[in-house]
Amino acid sequence: MLNSILSLTPDQARALDQYAADCTTGLSPLLARHYQWTRDTFEDADRASSLLQAQWMMQRAQERRATRVLDVGCYTGLSALAWYEATKQTGAEASTLYAAWKAFVSYGCEDRIRVVEARAEEALETLAGPFDLVFVDLEFSAYRPIVGQILDRGLLADNGIILVDNVFARGFVIGEARGNIDPAKLDHWKQSGQVVLDFNAFVAADPRVTVTIWPFFDGIAEIKLRGSERSSK
Amino acid sequence: MLNSILSLTPDQARALDQYAADCTTGLSPLLARHYQWTRDTFEDADRASSLLQAQWMMQRAQERRATRVLDVGCYTGLSALAWYEATKQTGAEASTLYAAWKAFVSYGCEDRIRVVEARAEEALETLAGPFDLVFVDLEFSAYRPIVGQILDRGLLADNGIILVDNVFARGFVIGEARGNIDPAKLDHWKQSGQVVLDFNAFVAADPRVTVTIWPFFDGIAEIKLRGSERSSK
Repeated sequence: MLNSILSLTPDQARALDQYAADCTTGLSPLLARHYQWTRDTFEDADRASSLLQAQWMMQRAQERRATRVLDVGCYTGLSALAWYEATKQTGAEASTLYAAWKAFVSYGCEDRIRVVEARAEEALETLAGPFDLVFVDLEFSAYRPIVGQILDRGLLADNGIILVDNVFARGFVIGEARGNIDPAKLDHWKQSGQVVLDFNAFVAADPRVTVTIWPFFDGIAEIKLRGSERSSK
Repeated sequence: MLNSILSLTPDQARALDQYAADCTTGLSPLLARHYQWTRDTFEDADRASSLLQAQWMMQRAQERRATRVLDVGCYTGLSALAWYEATKQTGAEASTLYAAWKAFVSYGCEDRIRVVEARAEEALETLAGPFDLVFVDLEFSAYRPIVGQILDRGLLADNGIILVDNVFARGFVIGEARGNIDPAKLDHWKQSGQVVLDFNAFVAADPRVTVTIWPFFDGIAEIKLRGSERSSK
């Protein structure tokens, strides 16, 4: 349809999202359970990813046969579980910074999820690469230093990818977006839009990498080392 | 953000789409060239996929290391080129039904794209499986018989996927959607919404498969044989 993104009212966006979930029969039961728990338990659950996004992340790791995953930034740990589920066959270790450790233990997932409780910048200094997949989803102001640090320290495998979440900042990268934004948080999102705009420009200008901005969910930047396609496939 | 889909006005959707493309540095030059040619040459170019969707399809085939791809339905052949680009290393053969053969020849891509000019139902009868990836993107009324035929004839590899495009029918699966729809085509899209609704229900009820509806682009159904995850990874 030439454009990548449908125009929808808030009601339509919600209805279509629900419709997609309702028609989906291949969801991971573990992710569905943890998503429901997040929704039911936390007032600010809007911070979590959607279940279909978690399913998408699981699939990316599966198809790339990732064996080492680094998850930078954790709310209730839905992404860490996605990596866990994705890597059952490769026996991968997922390192997540910050965490919902009790939930992981109750699911029996603590065997391959390692939680590092520390500021991301400090934790990164203690980790050794390379990682096949790095997921970055923490405060916007940390995007640039964290991604810079990952590249500078060579933590990304030659054929690895960095996925950075929310690079549309709810649409605010293009100025004021309509979305389902709480009016009280409008200033926060306007500022966030500017911060993410700067981050996206920083990545696009970095000669070490190529980036694709996936125009779905809240925008996901996929960053690869330049030349990695040639050498790996 | 709990929901998978942003709510955007038509202008915002267009701006965000353009922004994503502008920030993307890792696009396939061949896909970009063919996309531009499609835009410049055809008045009904709105039928084509977006460039970022083509890039997404290319990546899916790459990461799955597909070796045999079947592309059912062809407009200017952007999807066939995506499979071609994705499978350079595996040397895959992409079979596309209907086609833009001259363009393929001018790019030097005719070596591994086989064009079958026939009605899809008839062409499918002549093809032998299994295919690792099948892309279905033709008139909505053909979705159900074509996918049924692919499953009945065992054309899908055990670990293969069928991707069916436009399963949101521009949002009309949930009733009237706002989108960028030409008012003259409103009835067409309302009817299409109903046809696709029936198709999605048909797939969700088929015990042979699981389906995930990706809530991006115009909705993409990903269909897998049940149990294929266990056996293959």
